[in-house]
This record gives sequence, structure tokens and C-alpha cells, in this order.
Amino acid sequence: MEYEKNPLQEDELQKINAYWRAANYLSVGQIYLRDNPLLKEPLRPEHIKKMQMGHWGTTPGQNFIYVHLNRIIKKYGLNMIYVSGPGHGGPALVANTYLEGTYSEVYPRISQDTEGMKKLMTQFSFPGGIPSHVSPECPGSIHEGGELGYSLSHAFGAVLDNADLIAACVIGDGEAETGPLATSWHSNKFLNPEKDGTVLPILHLNGYKIANPTILARIPQAELESLLKGYGWKPYFVEGDEPFAMHQTMASVLENVCKDIQEIQYHARIEENNNCPCWPMIVLRTPKGWTGPKVVDGKQIEGTFRAHQVPIAEPDNNPLHLQQLEEWMLSYKPEELFDDNGHLIPELQALSPEGEKRMGANPHANGGIFLKDLIMPDFRDYKINLPAPGSLDASDTLTVGGFLRDIIRLNAHTFRLFGPDETLSNKLDKVFEQTNRQWEPEILPSDDFLATEGRVMEMLSEHQCEGWLEGYLLTGRHGLFNSYEAFIHIVDSMFNQHAKWLKVCAGLPWRRPIASLNYLLSSHVWRQDHNGFTHQDPGFIDHVANKKASIVRVYLPPDANCLLSVMDHCLRSRNYVNVIIAGKHPAPQWLTMEQAELHCTKGIGIWEWASNDAGNEPDIVMACAGDVPTLETLAAISILREKIPSLRVRVINVVDLMKLQSSTEHPHGLQEKDFDMLFTRDKPVIFAYHGYPWLIHRLTYKHANNENIHVHGYREEGTITTPFDMTVLNHLDRFHLVINVIDVLTQLGDRYAALKQDLQDKLILHRHYINENGEDMPEIRNWEWK
Amino acid sequence: MEYEKNPLQEDELQKINAYWRAANYLSVGQIYLRDNPLLKEPLRPEHIKKMQMGHWGTTPGQNFIYVHLNRIIKKYGLNMIYVSGPGHGGPALVANTYLEGTYSEVYPRISQDTEGMKKLMTQFSFPGGIPSHVSPECPGSIHEGGELGYSLSHAFGAVLDNADLIAACVIGDGEAETGPLATSWHSNKFLNPEKDGTVLPILHLNGYKIANPTILARIPQAELESLLKGYGWKPYFVEGDEPFAMHQTMASVLENVCKDIQEIQYHARIEENNNCPCWPMIVLRTPKGWTGPKVVDGKQIEGTFRAHQVPIAEPDNNPLHLQQLEEWMLSYKPEELFDDNGHLIPELQALSPEGEKRMGANPHANGGIFLKDLIMPDFRDYKINLPAPGSLDASDTLTVGGFLRDIIRLNAHTFRLFGPDETLSNKLDKVFEQTNRQWEPEILPSDDFLATEGRVMEMLSEHQCEGWLEGYLLTGRHGLFNSYEAFIHIVDSMFNQHAKWLKVCAGLPWRRPIASLNYLLSSHVWRQDHNGFTHQDPGFIDHVANKKASIVRVYLPPDANCLLSVMDHCLRSRNYVNVIIAGKHPAPQWLTMEQAELHCTKGIGIWEWASNDAGNEPDIVMACAGDVPTLETLAAISILREKIPSLRVRVINVVDLMKLQSSTEHPHGLQEKDFDMLFTRDKPVIFAYHGYPWLIHRLTYKHANNENIHVHGYREEGTITTPFDMTVLNHLDRFHLVINVIDVLTQLGDRYAALKQDLQDKLILHRHYINENGEDMPEIRNWEWK
Repeated sequence: MEYEKNPLQEDELQKINAYWRAANYLSVGQIYLRDNPLLKEPLRPEHIKKMQMGHWGTTPGQNFIYVHLNRIIKKYGLNMIYVSGPGHGGPALVANTYLEGTYSEVYPRISQDTEGMKKLMTQFSFPGGIPSHVSPECPGSIHEGGELGYSLSHAFGAVLDNADLIAACVIGDGEAETGPLATSWHSNKFLNPEKDGTVLPILHLNGYKIANPTILARIPQAELESLLKGYGWKPYFVEGDEPFAMHQTMASVLENVCKDIQEIQYHARIEENNNCPCWPMIVLRTPKGWTGPKVVDGKQIEGTFRAHQVPIAEPDNNPLHLQQLEEWMLSYKPEELFDDNGHLIPELQALSPEGEKRMGANPHANGGIFLKDLIMPDFRDYKINLPAPGSLDASDTLTVGGFLRDIIRLNAHTFRLFGPDETLSNKLDKVFEQTNRQWEPEILPSDDFLATEGRVMEMLSEHQCEGWLEGYLLTGRHGLFNSYEAFIHIVDSMFNQHAKWLKVCAGLPWRRPIASLNYLLSSHVWRQDHNGFTHQDPGFIDHVANKKASIVRVYLPPDANCLLSVMDHCLRSRNYVNVIIAGKHPAPQWLTMEQAELHCTKGIGIWEWASNDAGNEPDIVMACAGDVPTLETLAAISILREKIPSLRVRVINVVDLMKLQSSTEHPHGLQEKDFDMLFTRDKPVIFAYHGYPWLIHRLTYKHANNENIHVHGYREEGTITTPFDMTVLNHLDRFHLVINVIDVLTQLGDRYAALKQDLQDKLILHRHYINENGEDMPEIRNWEWK
Repeated sequence: MEYEKNPLQEDELQKINAYWRAANYLSVGQIYLRDNPLLKEPLRPEHIKKMQMGHWGTTPGQNFIYVHLNRIIKKYGLNMIYVSGPGHGGPALVANTYLEGTYSEVYPRISQDTEGMKKLMTQFSFPGGIPSHVSPECPGSIHEGGELGYSLSHAFGAVLDNADLIAACVIGDGEAETGPLATSWHSNKFLNPEKDGTVLPILHLNGYKIANPTILARIPQAELESLLKGYGWKPYFVEGDEPFAMHQTMASVLENVCKDIQEIQYHARIEENNNCPCWPMIVLRTPKGWTGPKVVDGKQIEGTFRAHQVPIAEPDNNPLHLQQLEEWMLSYKPEELFDDNGHLIPELQALSPEGEKRMGANPHANGGIFLKDLIMPDFRDYKINLPAPGSLDASDTLTVGGFLRDIIRLNAHTFRLFGPDETLSNKLDKVFEQTNRQWEPEILPSDDFLATEGRVMEMLSEHQCEGWLEGYLLTGRHGLFNSYEAFIHIVDSMFNQHAKWLKVCAGLPWRRPIASLNYLLSSHVWRQDHNGFTHQDPGFIDHVANKKASIVRVYLPPDANCLLSVMDHCLRSRNYVNVIIAGKHPAPQWLTMEQAELHCTKGIGIWEWASNDAGNEPDIVMACAGDVPTLETLAAISILREKIPSLRVRVINVVDLMKLQSSTEHPHGLQEKDFDMLFTRDKPVIFAYHGYPWLIHRLTYKHANNENIHVHGYREEGTITTPFDMTVLNHLDRFHLVINVIDVLTQLGDRYAALKQDLQDKLILHRHYINENGEDMPEIRNWEWK
């Protein structure tokens, strides 16, 4: 396509360049200055911060992009947000939101005058101030620039179901080397051009990472173009270092990009031609640290990795450096940009969009503004009708699938389900009675549940699922990530960053609450009958439990009715990360809906119907958390009832794991007296737990009875085998639990030595039987709770 | 390039097809049969496994690849290993290694006769048998097929410094959607064609994942070709479903691939033209479940996602299914392939390479065979000469850099350093006195430490670094991964898989020990002066501690001499994962080399020179683990000495974190009496710890004094600020430690209320000072241990 080479008239060109200079000036000021913001007096060492921090390298390029995006937003009335992948470019986003006025609206202290500019510069990367990268504190951002690799998936998440929105996404060439970013280019196959918005990737090639060149900047141009086309994009190249020529090229390319987007949307929305389109993108190649010092101390800076952070190292100690910094800053001619009071001059102010069109003020980037409660069907309508505990088997996830199906039906534009090709495998089949998987490439007749529009997003990349969902939540919608328990570790680090984002936002009143990040983990450690040892890892709970107690919640519903109640609770919550772990295979059901609701509301409780302590102090407490541990505990109770009927046993089930913590450590934690009421202060507790056993000790260590708790959990033993054999391998099975009871109750020791021996024999018999037959002994297979 | 269209003569063609049929036959047999392996009698339900497991979909394609690789290995005498990315194709690799004889050599029980074949089939995906995916049990494998995404980086790691080796790497089209795989195509930019071997990627497009089509199989062919060329590869396409035509095409393409590799190596090795070459690769497009049942129960199977696992569901219950299975298996005509005793007929046996040329027997895939001890310089030669504790500052990682430099010098072909562009940032600068970063694309004059050959591998992808290193270790070499502490979580799941691999290998005597996977984590949680909250996460330790105690080790050297000693120890070890966390900024040094060596050998010990309990029972124990906690503990000791000189304080430093566990839980764990000797049974312990505080409780919960331990650690509070302020935010600083001492020693409470108030005032003063000045109060900055 041909396009106008020089679309900017001289006046506009000069103004755009001046606006860019203003942003660059403020950026350098943030890195270096604590006083003399307008350089009204000669720069002296006391004006300089004692520690200069920040990343200059990426900043001028991002300032360049921002002013050009401002231009097309104004010209075409676009609804656009800015996602900054090369995250350390904090100075750029702070400078631009300040120039457009949003920064001062959010933080009136940082006013648009000399005093405010001084504070703006001082606070940057300063104790008690703001971080050096784009952070939650920065208006207009939904993407923290700490860890790299997720910008593009966040951008895609943001525009799903926002047909009108464009997410301009700046991707650093360092970031582009990460795995998550490398595969996120393929997100274009999952974007419906009719119903969803647009992502405009701007790959910013500034050539270097911290100390190395980047791959995409050093491969031949033809190879890069081939790569991006292979990813299904239409790349435009904007390359150079001469500012005025670059302004013209960028403006011209953006005109074309707008035309392309318009055409794609016209085809899809008016002509209803929904072929997976080839969206435009931009490759912007500029020198790292563009417009900064060319040479310092005899070494080339601009255009090399040395421009990455602080290009002039010691202006507070080295007079030559001080002079060079002053010359650099004055090269932007601040006196032409700001008036005497530090106001940006009106003709430059006029370049930025107005009101919510400003990218710093776009409400999508403070998504809680749009957040509406989900319309929720009554979860009780999906209940398992249970005549008696253990009287029938059901699949927990299959059951909750019906609930999710109707949530999808009732919230056709504000709820999505994400997962790495495991929605069916995790038995959430029922959602496909209502919707499909969204997929834009070719669909064949033999495919199931694929359509160009659908509420289920599946790509075999946990990173994409997590990134899309985060972007979707951060822009004010709701969602659920379903995954195999073991492989959710793939996004450990992404979860970290999101939990940190939520924690910081909790201290920013202007950031409106968003829907919680909900995980439904199935195909869990105990049920890897097909897959074995590699698929067994319950440690995500431990990982999550390290994050701020005000943010994280972990639920282990023991059956389908409890899962329904927990799911209802989590989907209504705000600003949390909720982890739900549930079984998918048919398994015994324990609680009626009424019991389940009460139990889940309390989060922890005595199961009276399984206990026989009848209001007295028990001899022993049998606690359990998780579906398989609950089953084995109840099977152990059966044995105890029959063999040691005089033993007073209390059964406690834990749904909300954080109940085990002290109330001083977690808002859900039990008060000391409540914990003691349940677990006693001195009776032995045999605790059958879903995950790594140590976590129970870590959670309960403040409680009096901690040292009497004997935890059975996953001890990293496993292979392909039956679920019961898995519990045997890890000593979580009914026999080991009963043996543990006999061992800890010394009064039983002698009397029940024969029983213990019998159980040990059973374990040996089990091993022989399973090795021979590949299935459990009939006594295990046919066990029923009575 | 033109190549011969039909290189196979009729006889060879027939034999290759027969060999493929044999592998397919054995694969189906593994999924279904427990008896009647050669189908000598009509198939009956009792011949069928009660649970049929395994993944048929990918299997025939991999069998196809294997027989063709065998052909070129024989023809050209190649030295090749096989990496199976679509990991669930276990039946294929087991079948092929059985056919070539290696399986029976490793497991004589699984003999090459009817009885052995029956056992081979029965053991597959059977309790007590072998997993359904390619696992450590499978000879010839260095890559577990559990989690997806790492095959290509493992393959690259394997061929580094193995000029002669070719790693054929089958990549599943599902796997290809993962982030790590998507960026691992770029590994070709890091492979030196003269000194390193070759990776031959074979992208296997079978069209479907579990329940979805795959992206790469559904994009237009031109786009796929563009993508692969953009990644810098030369793709050959082998596509179809007619076996004989496919055999001819595959053979023909492999001939060309061999020529291409030969030419590249000729250019690089003879002509010394080292331009980053464009290596050949293959795209193999075949139907999923190729040669399997076309239709079952009226639904299309072959060529759809329904062929993913077990295509015929109920042959044990459904007579029609049983008949269909029998027809399917007989379609391979086993009677033409195996003699009456179950031997593969000689003319087919002759197709496989011999001895170590067989991919199942290639010693590179049992890398311990090649493993030699590193030639180690004396770590004591790099020591910090320390007149007295705390008398000088040094950077720990800078110091160990000299040691690493000389290890690189002395082990020019068997040791590499991996990291995501952080070797300089982590202050390992000295390694560049000896070597460079290996980088094949263009190198500019302004670049530092780049060369086409070098021992440092840097790509901004922790996934690649981890994958390359694992591949390098698994083929019998040594290495070290240096990374920022927070972002090592990116590879949590890869670490899981490697730790599981090591655990399983420990039970396989034929798998020879390999060098440990060593992590050096710096830029840690307490020193994120530049980067702040997003870069603060010490939880990798917790993650590692969940894995099998026989595999994992965690070290927190408090100073440079300790780091040297620990590094020496780790680099000499085998079959472990060692995590070392060390500081990079100049910090006080505490121990002479002699003291450090003794201290690190014990792993935990009393620092007598800092204690004043002089052989008596102390009033209080001050314990510390990590460089910053050690500093704050000693600063707290200074205050206590001055203000409460009568207090008997014992100082314990922990280097080897697992020492804190009970000896019943970890091989390094202390015996109860030894723990009690150090920590007493009842005196309060103030423990300043590097990471999340709860881990200390989890590690020590079996010890008597656990309930008196008061742990100070990272509580997820942080921002950009000074290191001291970070400790204040998390209550790990000297003042909080002393206040804690006063609080727990009730006898001090009244007497030292004024001191406590004074310290609390100091904390307030600190906050004011730092917010105002952006740096610590002079008393903090200038503190010295005396």
C-alpha cells in the first residue's frame, strides 16, 4: 500500500518535536535532579540526586511513540491505552502523563508548575517515591514493567470484548527474547475482529539489552520481516535517527496502520467477512538512548548498551560530567517548552488528547471503573442431591461446569474461561453446551467446539492464558483460569507479579477494585493415573502462601457441593488471588448443599456425622484437606470405628486453608481459642493433606497444638499408578493413617499391635496385588462409607 | 537445491516400511496388551489391560522418524541422539530401542523374544512398570516428555562442544505453542558451527493437541515457512499420508539435510568461514494417529484430536472394539516381522545401526559416561585477606568471578556459564578476562565480550538458559546458571522436572551420575536498590525445599570466602540441585579463608568471635542466614554489647540451610542433640533469615526449641530504597532485632524500656531522614563492626 511520505506540515512537525523534547527533558530530569528543575540557574552538584537511578536507554523511543500516538488519537478520536513492555522506561510514561495533565489530577501534589516539576523529578526512583519502571502508581498503566515478557498478552487480554479499544503495545527487543513474548505474537489467532478490539504491537528495536545486543536487532532485516509475517502480522518499519525524518515516517506509518485497522474492522463488522486478518504492527528502530550523550569519558554511549541505565555516571562528583549533563538537558531547550512557572506552553498542551482520550486517563487502564458484578445463577441449583454422606459418586469439576456454563450465558461479554487445552480434560465439558473456543484460523468439520467467537480461550501456553486473563481482569472484567495443578508452576513468576501489583494497588485509592484472579486447578497430584510423576506437584499452594496474606486465598473443596459454594464465593470477590483445587474424576460426595454452604462459609469445621467424640474432648483429631485426603481419612475412620470402637475421634475438614494460620498472620486465620476449640491444645492430630506436608506446620506454627500435628501429604513419591496406590506411596492412605493413630496413642500400642500388624500386611498385599493386576484390591475398589 | 526424488530402491523401501510397521505394532501392543503379544491366538478380553493408557496420536509419526534416522545414521556413520519433544510418545521410543536391541541390553528381563515382548507390553503405563511418556527409564533419552516446551533447548545444550554430535529433535506442534519452545528456535544464533554440533529440528505437525487443533498446523503454509525462515532456519517439508511416497520424500529430504550440514561444517571448519549459518530443519506433516483406526463408533479418529490417546476405548468390554483392535494390529502383519520366538527377523534387524551408533545406546544420552571431574584451581587462591572480621568490604560475586574465570580457563570444553544477560550485572566480570559470550550474528566494534566462540551463554530467556544448561549437564558436562534471585521463579517448573528426573535416575543404576545443576542467584531480594518490589522474591528456596531431600541443597554464604568454599563444593558435586544465594555489592567480610572453609564444611556454626557466652548456656541465641541478615545481626550484637553488656549472646551463622532440618528429613540435617547443642532446648532464638520467615519454622519444626524461634525475614514489603531501609520495612534491621531481644527476655523488659524506646525513636528518625535525603543516616552508612 502506498502512503503519504511526509504527512506533517512544518508547524505540526515542529510542535511534535517540541513535545517530544519536553518529555525527554522531564525524563532526564527524573533520573538526575532533585532541584533546579527548569535549569533556571547553572546546574550544581547539590541539584543532583545522591543516587541516580532509572533506565534512559528505552525512554526517548517511548516518548517518541507516545507523542505520535497522541496525534492519531486526536485526529481519529481513538480509544487507546498504552502498554509499556520495556518496563524500566518509567520516566517516559511518568513524563507523558504529567505533560498531558493526568498525573497531576491523580496526584495533585505533583502540580503542573515549577514546584510540582521539582517533586516529580525528586520522587522518581527515590525512597518513599515511585519505582523506576512503569508501576501501578503510574496512571494509564495496566502493565508493570518489572518482569519482562507479558506485555503483548496483557494487551490482548485488555481488548477482548472491547471492540472499540486499541491497545498500543510497545515491546522491547530484550523482552522479545523471552519465551512468553515469543509465543504471544500468535495471540492474533484468537482475536475476533468483529467483537474484540485491536492490539497494535510496536516492536522497539533499540539494539541492546543490559549488556548484550538483542537478537531481533541483529538478524538480517529480511529475516525479521519474514519472522513477523510468519507470526501473521503486517509489519511497517520506521527506522533512523534523524528526528524530523523519523517524525514524518512515524506519522505516515501510523496513518496507514489506522487505515488497515479500519479496513479489517469494516470487513468484519460491516461485510461480516471474518477471515483471520493480518493486523498491522510497527517495527521502530532507533538508537538506544536516542538524543542522549553521544560520548562520555571517551566511550560511545548513544546507540550502545552503555545507554541502558544512567549514561552520565557522576555529575555530582565529576565537574565534566556535571557540565555534560547540563548541556544534554539544555539541548532540549526547556525555555522554549515551559513557561516561567513550569507550565507546558499552551500550543504544546494542545497536542495531547483531552479527558478520557488521554492515555493516562483512559478508564480501561483503571478497569475497576467498568467492573460490574457478575450476574450469578444460584449455585445451589447445580447441587448434587445427596441422601447420605458417601452414598454416591460424582465428578466435582463436571458439576461445577454447569454453573460455569450458565455464568457464561448470563455474562456474555464480561466473563471468559482460560486454559491450555485442558477445559475438556479437566471435565468442564458443560461450558460447551453454551459456548465455544474462540479460534480465528481455519475450522474443519471434524473439529469440536471451535468458533470465531467464544468464551473459552485455549492455547497450549500457560503464559498466554495467564497474561490474557490478567489483561482481561485489569480492564474490569471477570475470568477463570483452569489448568493442571502441576503445570501452573509455569506461571509462578507471573502470579508473583500480579500479586505484587494487587498489593501496591491496595494502597492507591484511585485504583478501583478489580475482580480476583481465580485459578481452578484440577488433574491434581493424586489423580495422575495417566501421566505419573512429572505431572505431580502440589507446590503452587506453597508458592502462593508466601505472598501477602491480604491478597491470597487457597481453597480445597472436598466434594462437588463445596466446590460450587467456593466457586460462587471466589467469582464474587475482588482484588484477591483465589486458588481452588478440585478433583475431576467421579468420587464420593459427602455434604448436602446446605451442609456444604455452611461448611464453606466457615471454611473449616468438625464433621459431626463422621466423628464420635459427641461434644467431649476427643482422644484424637483426624483432620483432612483436599478430596483424596478426605476420602482416605473417612476410610480410616471406618476402620477405627470397626476395630477400636471405644476411641473418641473428631473429624475436621478444612476447605479454606488459610483458616489454619493464626489470625495475626492472615485475615482468615482462626483466633487462638477457636483453633484450640477445634484441634484441642494437646491431643494428637493426624492431618491428611493434599500437598507438601510441611505447609501445614508452617501455617499452624503459632498455635499451641502445632507440635502434636502429624501431617501426611505428598512426599514426592509417585509414578503412573492407581489413585489409592499413590496415597500408599506417600503414606496418606487409610492404612498408614490408622497405623499412625495406633503409634501416637501410646495407650493403644500394646492392645492393638495385632491390628497394626494386620494393616501392615494389607499394605504388602496391596503392593503385590497391584503389581500383578494393575488395579486395586477389590476391598479398596469397592469400599463404601457406611 | 535439487535432490533425488525417490532415493529408496524397492527392497529398501519395503524394509523400511516393514520396520516402521514393527515399531507401530509394538506401540499399539504396549497401549493395549498384557498377553498374546504376537497375536498367535485370537484376541480375547483377558489379553487386554484393564486400564489402557498411553498416547497413540504422536507415536506412528515418531516411529516413522526413527526408522529414517536409523537409515542415515548407518549410511553416513552419524553420531546422533533423539530428543522426543511430544513427550507422551513413550511407546515409540520404547518400541524402537527394543527393536534395535538396546532396551534388552539395559533391561535383560525384557528380552527379545515372545516372553520379553509380553513383558514389554505389560509394563507400559502399568503400576510398577514404566510411565507412558519418554522417561529416564527409556535408554537413549535425555529429555523427559512430561512437561512440554524444552526439547529444543535441551537438544542445543547437548551439542554444545560436541562438534561431532547431531541431536535430532522432534518438536510437537502442541509443544510448539509454549513460550519456551517458541523462543528456543533462536538458539541457532548461539551455536558455533566449528566447535559445536548440530541440532536437526523435526517439527511434527500432526494437527492437534489434546482437544484442539494446533496453531502451526492451521496457519497457511506460506506463513509457516515464513515463520521458520524468520527464525533463521531452512525448512524442508515432508507432507502426506501415503506411506511409500512419504518414505521416499523423507529419505530424500534427509539426504539433503545431511548435505546441508556437511556444507555448513565444511565452510566453518575447513574454510573457516564462520557466518551464522542457516541450518536445515524438517517439517513433517502426517495425520494424527497415522495408520490407526480411521473410524470408531462412527467418529473419525485418524487425523483428528480423537487419536490423541487411546483410539479404541473399550476392547475389553465391547466385542466390536476388540475386533477392531485385532484388525488394526494385524494390519501391521506381525507374522512377517517377527519370527515364531518373537525375534525381529534378521533382514529388519539389519536396518538398525550397531553398537553405540544406535540412538538408544548413544553414550551422550547417558552423559555420566563422559563426565570427568572439573580441573579445579585452589579456591583458596582467590581469598579475601581479612585482618579482622568486618575490617573490609568486598563484593562476593566479584570475588568468585576470578575463581570461575580460571575454571573456564582450565576446562575449555567442559564448563559453561549460563545467564539471561546478567553476568556483568551480577558482577561476574572477571570471567570476561578469559572468555566471551558466544554469539553468531553480526558483532559491532562497540560490543563488549562477544565472539563466535565463548564459554558464556546469554539470552534474555531464563527458560533457554535453564534448558541449555540441563542439556549440557545431561550429556556429561558442567555448568553454572547465574540469575537474579526473583526471576529464577520463571524456571520453577523446569527445575521441578529436572529434580524429578534426577530422583528417578537415582533408582536406575545404569544411568551414570551427572554434574549437579548449580544456581548462583544474586541481585537478591535485599539489594534491589535500582529495581524495587517487582524484583524482590526469595521464594525459590521454598520451592526447591519441597523437592526430594536427597536431591536439593541450598547455600547462603555470608561473605566472599564462604562463597568461594561453597562454589568449590557445589561444582564438584553430582546429581544434586545446588542453589547458592550471594550478594554482589561490596559488603563487610567476616571470615578468613581458614575460618570460612571450616564453617562451610560444617554448614552451620557458632561464631565465637561475635558471641559472649564463652562456653556457657547463653541467654539468647542470635542466628543468621544470608549476607544481609548476617550484617544486621552483627550490628544488633554491637548494640547489645554496648547497651546490655551483661547479656550472654550466642551468634550462629547458617550457610547450609538444610542443616536446620532434622536428620530424619534431610541427609544434611542435624541430629537432635547437635541442634540442641547449638540452639539450646529452651532459650529464645532471634533468627535473621534471608527469605520468607516461615521456611525456618518449616525446617526446624521437629526440633525441641522450634517454638522459641523468632524469625525475621522478607515479609513482602519493599520498594526502591536503600538496603538498610529494606531491612527496616521487613523488621530485619538491627533495631528491630534488638527490640525483639528485649521483648522476649522478660527479665530485660523493665530495665531496658528506655533502650527500646530509643531504638523505636531511631526507626522513626530513620524514616524521616531517608525520605528527606534519599540515603541512610550517617550512623548507618558509617557503621563498622568493632
